[in-house]
Amino acid sequence: MATRARVLIDCKDQKGLVYKISKIFYEFDLNIDSNQEFVEKEDSHFFMRTVVTGEFDDRALEKSLKNIVGENAKVKVVTPAKKNIVLMATKESHALGDILIRYLDGELDANIVAVIANRDNLQPLVERFNIPFIHISADSLSREEHEELVLKELAKYEYEYIVLAKYMRILTPNFVAKNEGKIINIHHSFLPAFIGANPYKQAFERGVKIIGATAHFVTNDLDEGPIIAQDVISVNHRFNWKDMQRAGRDVEKIVLSRALKLVLEDRVFVYTNKTVVF
Amino acid sequence: MATRARVLIDCKDQKGLVYKISKIFYEFDLNIDSNQEFVEKEDSHFFMRTVVTGEFDDRALEKSLKNIVGENAKVKVVTPAKKNIVLMATKESHALGDILIRYLDGELDANIVAVIANRDNLQPLVERFNIPFIHISADSLSREEHEELVLKELAKYEYEYIVLAKYMRILTPNFVAKNEGKIINIHHSFLPAFIGANPYKQAFERGVKIIGATAHFVTNDLDEGPIIAQDVISVNHRFNWKDMQRAGRDVEKIVLSRALKLVLEDRVFVYTNKTVVF
Amino acid sequence: MATRARVLIDCKDQKGLVYKISKIFYEFDLNIDSNQEFVEKEDSHFFMRTVVTGEFDDRALEKSLKNIVGENAKVKVVTPAKKNIVLMATKESHALGDILIRYLDGELDANIVAVIANRDNLQPLVERFNIPFIHISADSLSREEHEELVLKELAKYEYEYIVLAKYMRILTPNFVAKNEGKIINIHHSFLPAFIGANPYKQAFERGVKIIGATAHFVTNDLDEGPIIAQDVISVNHRFNWKDMQRAGRDVEKIVLSRALKLVLEDRVFVYTNKTVVF
Amino acid sequence: MATRARVLIDCKDQKGLVYKISKIFYEFDLNIDSNQEFVEKEDSHFFMRTVVTGEFDDRALEKSLKNIVGENAKVKVVTPAKKNIVLMATKESHALGDILIRYLDGELDANIVAVIANRDNLQPLVERFNIPFIHISADSLSREEHEELVLKELAKYEYEYIVLAKYMRILTPNFVAKNEGKIINIHHSFLPAFIGANPYKQAFERGVKIIGATAHFVTNDLDEGPIIAQDVISVNHRFNWKDMQRAGRDVEKIVLSRALKLVLEDRVFVYTNKTVVF
Repeated sequence: MATRARVLIDCKDQKGLVYKISKIFYEFDLNIDSNQEFVEKEDSHFFMRTVVTGEFDDRALEKSLKNIVGENAKVKVVTPAKKNIVLMATKESHALGDILIRYLDGELDANIVAVIANRDNLQPLVERFNIPFIHISADSLSREEHEELVLKELAKYEYEYIVLAKYMRILTPNFVAKNEGKIINIHHSFLPAFIGANPYKQAFERGVKIIGATAHFVTNDLDEGPIIAQDVISVNHRFNWKDMQRAGRDVEKIVLSRALKLVLEDRVFVYTNKTVVF
Repeated sequence: MATRARVLIDCKDQKGLVYKISKIFYEFDLNIDSNQEFVEKEDSHFFMRTVVTGEFDDRALEKSLKNIVGENAKVKVVTPAKKNIVLMATKESHALGDILIRYLDGELDANIVAVIANRDNLQPLVERFNIPFIHISADSLSREEHEELVLKELAKYEYEYIVLAKYMRILTPNFVAKNEGKIINIHHSFLPAFIGANPYKQAFERGVKIIGATAHFVTNDLDEGPIIAQDVISVNHRFNWKDMQRAGRDVEKIVLSRALKLVLEDRVFVYTNKTVVF
Repeated sequence: MATRARVLIDCKDQKGLVYKISKIFYEFDLNIDSNQEFVEKEDSHFFMRTVVTGEFDDRALEKSLKNIVGENAKVKVVTPAKKNIVLMATKESHALGDILIRYLDGELDANIVAVIANRDNLQPLVERFNIPFIHISADSLSREEHEELVLKELAKYEYEYIVLAKYMRILTPNFVAKNEGKIINIHHSFLPAFIGANPYKQAFERGVKIIGATAHFVTNDLDEGPIIAQDVISVNHRFNWKDMQRAGRDVEKIVLSRALKLVLEDRVFVYTNKTVVF
Repeated sequence: MATRARVLIDCKDQKGLVYKISKIFYEFDLNIDSNQEFVEKEDSHFFMRTVVTGEFDDRALEKSLKNIVGENAKVKVVTPAKKNIVLMATKESHALGDILIRYLDGELDANIVAVIANRDNLQPLVERFNIPFIHISADSLSREEHEELVLKELAKYEYEYIVLAKYMRILTPNFVAKNEGKIINIHHSFLPAFIGANPYKQAFERGVKIIGATAHFVTNDLDEGPIIAQDVISVNHRFNWKDMQRAGRDVEKIVLSRALKLVLEDRVFVYTNKTVVF
């Protein structure tokens, strides 16, 4: 018997849907702690995230809801539990460190099961937090060979999400396909501006007055996946690109951690390369 | 028969409330265009704003809903219509002008029925927009005498809201009581910082690095009413208080217009000196 | 004899430059009211904007400074005076209206000598402010023919800047060349994201969480000119592209007016497709 | 012989000051790498921060400058060196952790010589970074007794600044006097709003739509010292005060680290309870 759950529904909209869903909540004698809905008008698609409390059989609730909303709907009743995540990094410590400090704080609803990096300089930092650090160098390996080693290592763990905390290598379609919808990245620009390599240098050369960072799910199109969160910071002519990079790190780490928190709390729905964030 | 309405419910929370409400929507054969709910936990109070479409008798809908949610609940079914508003000003044109330009644009769901000011310099501006300008000087009048004249003038109009677009006089409890919940003010600081007179001078003297503006409903406590919207802007040591004032005007006008839009769209619920803004 | 001037210097950096310049200020018995300098490191280029007061021959001061900083330097001693500007618009009133209200306020150091538009709906608004409104329809004209008419009209006025207040037509290289460094545009996106047509639609389709606006000088490359000012606003999945457009207008008008103010106060230096903004 | 230094001047303004100072730079054959000046108009006070490069005797330079600007001026020629700092904390890890990660990164121009805390839960975190952690419990001690122990511990170290990374005890005038101008605090509100205890609870009760954080130097007046940096974050009715606290932490840590960086780079001048930040 559960006492609290997040009900996540993602389906074609239909008249009476909220009525039918809330009827089931009523029949299960549930309290609605919070409720958010959204109807995407273009395709008339319905999204709902409801936190319910009471004493109830969560599997039975899920089944009842599925009967109502139809075959192709996605219905999930999620009871509170820490999700397993793997972090991947290269050599910068700000985004990784920010997650580690929050982890220590108990601020994240997650277990960090491992950190995988293609460089080894972050090993002392990670091991200070008693988290396994796995160094998989990419030196003299093809992209595919390197990823093969990473996938082999990943196979040892159960995880729901991979968080790229400034992992500076591009992932192949094969890797992405094997982790579909599971990979969260932080891109160090305000996408879609400055896709690709060294966005701060691009930003400096363009002479922008604001720089930003974007957390998104990874798809096969580089830096084109669904955006979860973005934020920006003002710069001016006194900033060279190194200064922008330094200032940008604060935005990167906050945006990545914010996106991770949203995902861990089941607040993010992906739909047609966009997100609905409750 | 209505084809579109905003359903506004503000009542004690109870188990099954959403079910009962959505059942009525279902029985009236309504589509839910958008729906937002919030339960204030401390007092277990329920707020809902739903936009419904269909073909329906809006008075019957309101009655049915009232039967469900109980005696003391506030239930309103609002069909789309421009609301009448009166603007009050003193001598500054930025907040007033911003509203006038939006009015001309058709951006505001409102009819501006009159502008009342205690100075006369804004007369040419207002009359350019073919809106009655009423100058009521406060010279050599007591506060009560002046307000008596204003109230007399207001009595000639039907209005749902009075918008103080930088009206620089303090209103008496009598005036506020006669327009309870109807007066929207823009205070030129980030409340509750710098309550009272000349907040920019206060901000300058305190050496703050950010200044702001606050739109709020007016109650008897000066600058203490429920906050609708706030925004801020960065300043630095190069700003004297006049510079802060100049920079602050941009925030003032945007925040006031944003708050006005929210109120006109029935998105703001007031509860225990706070607002729920959908 | 002048009593106050802005000294603007833009030249190759050299050792002792500040010493030599300040020596001249000293010899002219000037007070330095404010002073800002910047050295662009990549090309070792020097920029300075100093406000001086005293009693002095501004032409003699300019000449002395020119002698010091060398042949290819740009040196200007600007005494306070309103600059003439022409506004160009199409049909939207928010950016134009914002400038008109500030103009009326005396907030802008400018004379608006005319408004030129390719549609006629803004005529009543502009004429309310006693400013000549010139309607030049582009119907059944080639881009070159239309611009010929605009240039002919512009030739009747003396102006230092053309402000495109949501003028929705692309300018030809010919037009830009004839007004080099004089045209300020507001682009309704956070450049370089969403260059070109309908950026709000592009932003909506990409699913961004922040939208913005960019004021820039116009060059021959569409939306690629030196950026003067940018700002952003948060959006979410509830915004369709029309909502983004509506919300974006507030950013557009504030950013354009802010950029215009900076330019009118001689605070903007253009250098290698970027700006130094003091 | 130095090759690079920050020249910091803080004195009464006088005609020809920049000329006299730059003349000395010229005589010492220095390059001006960057230069920022500000004249506070009310008291006609002059501030300058110049980064000079070359080959020079920094003590001789300081002496020459002192001769010029007069007796009561503050003149410092600072050659690049890490400053010693002591951190003080209570039990929250976010602000402390943020500084530690930056420290590890080499991002801060500082040596953290010790962390002093009145609780012991942060010990494992701090010791992971090989920094001495000193636990001085305040249990069953008067404020004076506790501070006596802290001062005794501090006396063992040479330090230029004490950073209060969410140290939740109020300091006595005695403690502040012994560390005048050396103590940097982060207050978890947008000062001067919500001075004192539990600002998030106060903010929640007031129903604000934006919360913030303020880094400031500590003086004897609680939360009234010169402000170095501030930032804000949006909240809404869905945030209870715990949510505000959680969201506010991100602002707190970024603002404190930003202020610390500014101070370590000698960019902050204090003047009449305000700061000039270059």
